[in-house]
Amino acid sequence: MGKGMVPNLLKAGHQLSIWNRSPEPLEEMKKLGAVVVDTPQQAFDADVVITMLSDDNVTRQIVIDSGALASAKPGLIHLSMATLSAALTIELSELHEKAGVAYIAAPVFGRNNLAAAGTLNIAVAGPQQAIDKVQPLLDMMGQKTWPMGDQPVQAAILKISANMMLGCAIEALGEAMALTQSYGIANESMVDFVTNTLFASPAYKIYGPLISQRTVEQPSFTLRLGLKDCNLALKAGEAHDVPLPFASVLRDNFLQALAAGDGGKDISMLGVHAIKRSGQQ
Amino acid sequence: MGKGMVPNLLKAGHQLSIWNRSPEPLEEMKKLGAVVVDTPQQAFDADVVITMLSDDNVTRQIVIDSGALASAKPGLIHLSMATLSAALTIELSELHEKAGVAYIAAPVFGRNNLAAAGTLNIAVAGPQQAIDKVQPLLDMMGQKTWPMGDQPVQAAILKISANMMLGCAIEALGEAMALTQSYGIANESMVDFVTNTLFASPAYKIYGPLISQRTVEQPSFTLRLGLKDCNLALKAGEAHDVPLPFASVLRDNFLQALAAGDGGKDISMLGVHAIKRSGQQ
Amino acid sequence: MGKGMVPNLLKAGHQLSIWNRSPEPLEEMKKLGAVVVDTPQQAFDADVVITMLSDDNVTRQIVIDSGALASAKPGLIHLSMATLSAALTIELSELHEKAGVAYIAAPVFGRNNLAAAGTLNIAVAGPQQAIDKVQPLLDMMGQKTWPMGDQPVQAAILKISANMMLGCAIEALGEAMALTQSYGIANESMVDFVTNTLFASPAYKIYGPLISQRTVEQPSFTLRLGLKDCNLALKAGEAHDVPLPFASVLRDNFLQALAAGDGGKDISMLGVHAIKRSGQQ
Amino acid sequence: MGKGMVPNLLKAGHQLSIWNRSPEPLEEMKKLGAVVVDTPQQAFDADVVITMLSDDNVTRQIVIDSGALASAKPGLIHLSMATLSAALTIELSELHEKAGVAYIAAPVFGRNNLAAAGTLNIAVAGPQQAIDKVQPLLDMMGQKTWPMGDQPVQAAILKISANMMLGCAIEALGEAMALTQSYGIANESMVDFVTNTLFASPAYKIYGPLISQRTVEQPSFTLRLGLKDCNLALKAGEAHDVPLPFASVLRDNFLQALAAGDGGKDISMLGVHAIKRSGQQ
Repeated sequence: MGKGMVPNLLKAGHQLSIWNRSPEPLEEMKKLGAVVVDTPQQAFDADVVITMLSDDNVTRQIVIDSGALASAKPGLIHLSMATLSAALTIELSELHEKAGVAYIAAPVFGRNNLAAAGTLNIAVAGPQQAIDKVQPLLDMMGQKTWPMGDQPVQAAILKISANMMLGCAIEALGEAMALTQSYGIANESMVDFVTNTLFASPAYKIYGPLISQRTVEQPSFTLRLGLKDCNLALKAGEAHDVPLPFASVLRDNFLQALAAGDGGKDISMLGVHAIKRSGQQ
Repeated sequence: MGKGMVPNLLKAGHQLSIWNRSPEPLEEMKKLGAVVVDTPQQAFDADVVITMLSDDNVTRQIVIDSGALASAKPGLIHLSMATLSAALTIELSELHEKAGVAYIAAPVFGRNNLAAAGTLNIAVAGPQQAIDKVQPLLDMMGQKTWPMGDQPVQAAILKISANMMLGCAIEALGEAMALTQSYGIANESMVDFVTNTLFASPAYKIYGPLISQRTVEQPSFTLRLGLKDCNLALKAGEAHDVPLPFASVLRDNFLQALAAGDGGKDISMLGVHAIKRSGQQ
Repeated sequence: MGKGMVPNLLKAGHQLSIWNRSPEPLEEMKKLGAVVVDTPQQAFDADVVITMLSDDNVTRQIVIDSGALASAKPGLIHLSMATLSAALTIELSELHEKAGVAYIAAPVFGRNNLAAAGTLNIAVAGPQQAIDKVQPLLDMMGQKTWPMGDQPVQAAILKISANMMLGCAIEALGEAMALTQSYGIANESMVDFVTNTLFASPAYKIYGPLISQRTVEQPSFTLRLGLKDCNLALKAGEAHDVPLPFASVLRDNFLQALAAGDGGKDISMLGVHAIKRSGQQ
Repeated sequence: MGKGMVPNLLKAGHQLSIWNRSPEPLEEMKKLGAVVVDTPQQAFDADVVITMLSDDNVTRQIVIDSGALASAKPGLIHLSMATLSAALTIELSELHEKAGVAYIAAPVFGRNNLAAAGTLNIAVAGPQQAIDKVQPLLDMMGQKTWPMGDQPVQAAILKISANMMLGCAIEALGEAMALTQSYGIANESMVDFVTNTLFASPAYKIYGPLISQRTVEQPSFTLRLGLKDCNLALKAGEAHDVPLPFASVLRDNFLQALAAGDGGKDISMLGVHAIKRSGQQ
């Protein structure tokens, strides 16, 4: 994701120090003018640091355990663009406040190609003054910023909820296809209809055809990651006594797909398994 | 629904005999040139009869028990545009075939105003020759016809499945709002975001704001009818051994809403109850 | 079931006219002194008629459509011992009342061998005076009668609910075994433990070992019948706005087992499928 | 729980050093001859240490973080009798092995009064040699020991699974009562029947009447703890790709009860909420 974002920031004339756990992906950006640094600490010695880390564990390791936050430049603004748990986001908010660093959660919606085109959607939450300062950066990376409040967890929960809704759309598509297919309707006809009428939106237009064609050569998002995101919703809900029966069904169905050995396959397989459960191929 | 359709058919120069259980709604159409008849039998004494009856029971009564089908004009084409069960549609197909009447299922998608504007979407299934003959009528009533096969049940199951997906979208929206609201995000902000990004489609654009505003003065579709439609999906699935875990959750949640006395309220209340289950208003 | 009951009634000196759709099973009872009659009507020409019919459809056919109820002997008491739906039981209650025949629902708990031993448990509901009259018969057939009220549907719903609880016990056992087995515990050890401690009751003692051994040569109760009973609970619940989330899960799991071709296998396979869903044998 | 166990061990002539986070409960045992020590380390300076700690967090704190395990007497056997997660049990097994301490998981089934009477059921798993050595102690505390294997997690998962089954029994009872009650059957009659026939076991005999009477003055096990245990099952299942649809339903129903403010009430309220969802009191 960084690969797509960095050029947009450099083009705007910003000075960029970049760090990654494996240095290979940085070569290209180095050529574009970014300065490669050796440690997270060096990256946190700036006016603004943007992090895009894969999950809670990595974030905890890089931001807290490495000492990066503890040695951050005074006045730093930390713009965290990954999908993190509600609990870690709250913990990070508190740790950053203690460290005198402004923490902004700004998870992104869209895939790599949107990042490169600068057309991501970005939810944002955190201290308003800090958001105002980084708004120009957000405008470079995304087509639109969606403010969700002054607590970083609010942007995190929006991202988590939208991902949950995406899982629900895939399951609903799969169940509906299991039903129509059992009455002899081709999946393509069914998908063509729903995605051009009531459900004419990206979520359904992306996943309808993927379920229909059954196999995805290069998964951009695996079932295993889908389960991880589903658990983020369940955990965040549990913290506030929010029952989420649809997410519970998703969780069990993800597990059944994993038990069948499909954990590394594309998340659209969640819908395919809804069809398989009915004894159909 | 007929109110919206009849003028379009009359405008096209067709001669129309109309019948309704309660005669009041027919007055207006009479003025436009339709001939009011006294019995279903008279309506079935035509080249084409279009039925739009509220459910299985009424359809059984009007089409079969009244003797209308038995005394139908030879060569009649019956265009059934209501949402009926898969089982009754199969039974009607067989009874019509025996009676020498072509039976076409052509359930519509859209509300009354779309019917008046002639911009409904219409799924259609049945004998191809008969469909070809009524295609000009379908083109007058809808903006697009979606052919689903030569067995009427195929159009019925598409309608049933799409309604099931709609229920799933409402529940998913409700659960997601329960989650985001519990973290202090206004429902409006959440709905604004999802319906302008991943879920920018009619289903979500209609029901997101309705859940958000909590009350709907004049329900266009009640929870009780939603439960009826959900049961159509469950029944049709059961006939073909298709498990539908999302529909099962919907069914229980519809019942919980009915138990709370909300059966007559708008189906968007399904999402509101997802929020209430979390102890929030 | 009748095979086990009839001898007990004859032994007590009662005069018995018996009827069955297929006459073969009656030969044996004929030898014991029962009089075989040719029609349901003849069976309904008595002081008391006991019916044990396989389901709603057959009951409707034999009791109503055949004219048996209409031509019943004045003052007849009808003791219906099958598992019937709540809706049909209510309908039968009304029809019997109109016909001047006392209708008692007295579904039995136990298998054929208990019937022969006269150790069934019998739930009973209906007009108290009529129950008093047939109490001696109930005492011959069962070890204990459990009065549930003066409306026949009350005995029907008790039976339906107990069957639902049985399905729940099987599913719970299956899920728990899936879990313990995945950590290397033999199913037998797990079953031995639970059925000798917290769950030391017939339901668990019967089904724990059956799930554990995976295959049952001669199913005494099939998955398909299990689904039928599960639907009796869901339907009865729906009539009173009672959500039954466990029964909904059972329904979907029954369907998944049917879709896998196991409909004719023993109901204990419901638990086996809980294990299979986890990718284990 | 310790209160009930300690006297049994002292009576047998064992020398006991005891430690508790709050010292008050120890006074009584001191009088019986136990030696109160000041730190966990002192308790781990023995031939055998028995721990009965409330949950994962407390166990981690007392056993690991306090340094007790690190400074344990060589050859120590640690008999852990609490209900702990599968993951922590595996982690503890590894840490103990490294520290040269035998780790045995021996979770108990039964309440305080059974502990005092020495009639608990005890599941046990761990190195066989160590189990052999502590068997006399287990015999003093419980009426029966149930060996589950040589990996401590096997006893942990049995306890977790049995607790899950208990939750399922409560939910099933609640749903069945919602159904029978809606048809006018008193909860007491229903419970009387099921707990004397198919479900004549402690689980149902304890919880049936508690649901029936609705309120429990002094909860011995709260809904909040029930949710914690349910999560232990879901987590343990997830680690091995085991879907647990019943446990998922339980989780959502626990949360709904917590959202209604009932977290501190007795776990039997899970069944009461099944009744409330149907609009009944």
